[in-house]
Amino acid sequence: ATTFRASEHQHIRYNPLQDEWVLVSAHRMKRPWQGQVEPPLLKTAPRHDPHNPLCPGATRANGEVNPYYDGTFLFDNDFPALQPDAPNPGPSDHPLFQTEAARGVCKVMCFHPWSDVTLPLMSVPEIRTVIDAWAAVTEELGARYPWVQIFENKGAMMGCSNPHPHCQVWASSFLPDIAQREERSQQAYQSQHGEPLLMEYGHQELLRKERLVLTSEHWLVLVPFWAVWPFQTLLLPRRHVRRLPELTPAERDDLASIMKKLLTKYDNLFETSFPYSMGWHGAPTGSEAGANWDHWQLHAHYYPPLLRSATVRKFMVGYEMLAQAQRDLTPEQAAERLRTVPEVHYRLGQK
Amino acid sequence: ATTFRASEHQHIRYNPLQDEWVLVSAHRMKRPWQGQVEPPLLKTAPRHDPHNPLCPGATRANGEVNPYYDGTFLFDNDFPALQPDAPNPGPSDHPLFQTEAARGVCKVMCFHPWSDVTLPLMSVPEIRTVIDAWAAVTEELGARYPWVQIFENKGAMMGCSNPHPHCQVWASSFLPDIAQREERSQQAYQSQHGEPLLMEYGHQELLRKERLVLTSEHWLVLVPFWAVWPFQTLLLPRRHVRRLPELTPAERDDLASIMKKLLTKYDNLFETSFPYSMGWHGAPTGSEAGANWDHWQLHAHYYPPLLRSATVRKFMVGYEMLAQAQRDLTPEQAAERLRTVPEVHYRLGQK
Ligand SMILES: O=P(O)(O)O[C@H]1O[C@H](CO)[C@@H](O)[C@H](O)[C@H]1O
Ligand SMILES: O=P(O)(O)O[C@H]1O[C@H](CO)[C@@H](O)[C@H](O)[C@H]1O
Repeated sequence: ATTFRASEHQHIRYNPLQDEWVLVSAHRMKRPWQGQVEPPLLKTAPRHDPHNPLCPGATRANGEVNPYYDGTFLFDNDFPALQPDAPNPGPSDHPLFQTEAARGVCKVMCFHPWSDVTLPLMSVPEIRTVIDAWAAVTEELGARYPWVQIFENKGAMMGCSNPHPHCQVWASSFLPDIAQREERSQQAYQSQHGEPLLMEYGHQELLRKERLVLTSEHWLVLVPFWAVWPFQTLLLPRRHVRRLPELTPAERDDLASIMKKLLTKYDNLFETSFPYSMGWHGAPTGSEAGANWDHWQLHAHYYPPLLRSATVRKFMVGYEMLAQAQRDLTPEQAAERLRTVPEVHYRLGQK
Repeated sequence: ATTFRASEHQHIRYNPLQDEWVLVSAHRMKRPWQGQVEPPLLKTAPRHDPHNPLCPGATRANGEVNPYYDGTFLFDNDFPALQPDAPNPGPSDHPLFQTEAARGVCKVMCFHPWSDVTLPLMSVPEIRTVIDAWAAVTEELGARYPWVQIFENKGAMMGCSNPHPHCQVWASSFLPDIAQREERSQQAYQSQHGEPLLMEYGHQELLRKERLVLTSEHWLVLVPFWAVWPFQTLLLPRRHVRRLPELTPAERDDLASIMKKLLTKYDNLFETSFPYSMGWHGAPTGSEAGANWDHWQLHAHYYPPLLRSATVRKFMVGYEMLAQAQRDLTPEQAAERLRTVPEVHYRLGQK
């Protein structure tokens, strides 16, 4: 019988954090690609555009004028998916027709006053300012809401409609679906094994090494064993930290530095401004914030769509939508490639 | 207090079939769209292209020559994600690193010898031939594998790399993730309520009417109460049918006719060849096919990405990837729009 090799033989892997399986068929990278290629990146946006509602001094859809901010800038989304005062839909009349109330707020956070930068092109102290703003908004909205979802859609491919560097913050009165899954899994792991799932997972990856991308004094970046997107990564603190506001100043500085390295590697991989959706997950907040959430470990997920080049993405369609996620290179191969790309941004060149 | 109106007030809805929640924020359709627009559709493909590996008489990547088929044509995918002989990965050494064996086959099915047609442009008897081929391949691969996933990726937006009308069939030695979820939900519903979940669901939708798109003697098409994609639909037989091969000749003819109507409406909605991924779900097959699967009801899911026009899609990114699916119009609004578009294809015109 042939010896099993993950890079040659398809197999399925389990995601214990989100309770899902992925089909890994690495031999599939060999097939030629004749499908859709993405439009090439537009030229960089101008540094300042008075008509861009995210720029300092610009007028927004609701008539408000942005301040001449020089760090980060947080404001209410003018077209929020969640509003604080939606009425209650009332009780459901049938188990197959269940509706529940949803209340919340949606905010937008600009990372920088300039439209022509992205996080990897910002300085470490500038990224540190973003991290502090993330911690502050988690604190502020977490006082009222059980879940504060910080996420960044980067690039037109990820539905991002504005080139200005920014992220969004949606806080909700309910625990969203994926938060619920992570809650269930981490809770179950803790009660079975007596330690947080992601603490043990980070520990194991440090021993096994093959999926590590970057390590620093306080942080790890790795391609998870169960990654679905080609170059998906997981960013984990080494210490047991439940939420962003708990990070120490040293951990925040170190996070800014490792984020800059990771995002530079991403841009360098295909020499493009690498598109992705990313977001933070930490212990639930709101009125239950004081409960025991020790099974939670703070982490960020990066989900980048590109597979082969700056213009050929992975399509999560058909089989993936109807049956199961499928990937075309192993997580170990992806980690290896990310490890070998330089940490100096291709647009900045060697000094 | 304001009265709750689904079309104005955000709320969350539960998908009892796949155990997931969706955030419905219909007021969000009001926001302007400045993001990515999809490239316009290329002109229709030529009817016959000897270099297209899906055409009759063409030579495929492995050197085989296609027959001059004149109905459907089924063959092995030259770049399969699942192969019948992958070795077993062996036991896992840690609960966070679980791998399992995956074996299977991937096939491609051409619907028609011509590259310039799509299902809605084919005749009802031609579509009936496709349905018979679906039933036959389910029977054939279902003898060996517990899950036979038939799916169609239509359009470049859905990663479809060949304009020739075709679908894929991936049969696997494992029950894929979404099949497992539907199995759990239908099993639980049956044991709690004594009837199949989707039989009761179809029955309720016939009474409630507001989400129905099409009905015929043997079939229903509706926008599910918990739909995630803007114009997602669910196609259900009225009779309790567990798998495609069980369909009677009358049910197959009627299916061909309702599929033609649905897909014509889809094309007419934005006057474009409407992209989607679709697929069939029925009771598991393989060596356990003889067990009691009465809790299963055969159904097809249609997942089309377009939201506003032929070139503006819904992006399932950021919040959707990290927290929860979100939709921008209510399922009732989507059903209403689909009901009102004509059943005659815009390219065929009124006769
Ligand atoms: O085999 P195809 O059609 O080229 O590939 C397409 O469908 C597959 C199954 O849904 C996906 O895994 C691929 O990402 C997609 O591009
Ligand atoms: O609000 P934006 O950035 O315009 O919208 C984008 O992100 C949202 C949250 O992930 C998605 O629901 C939208 O589909 C996407 O286009």
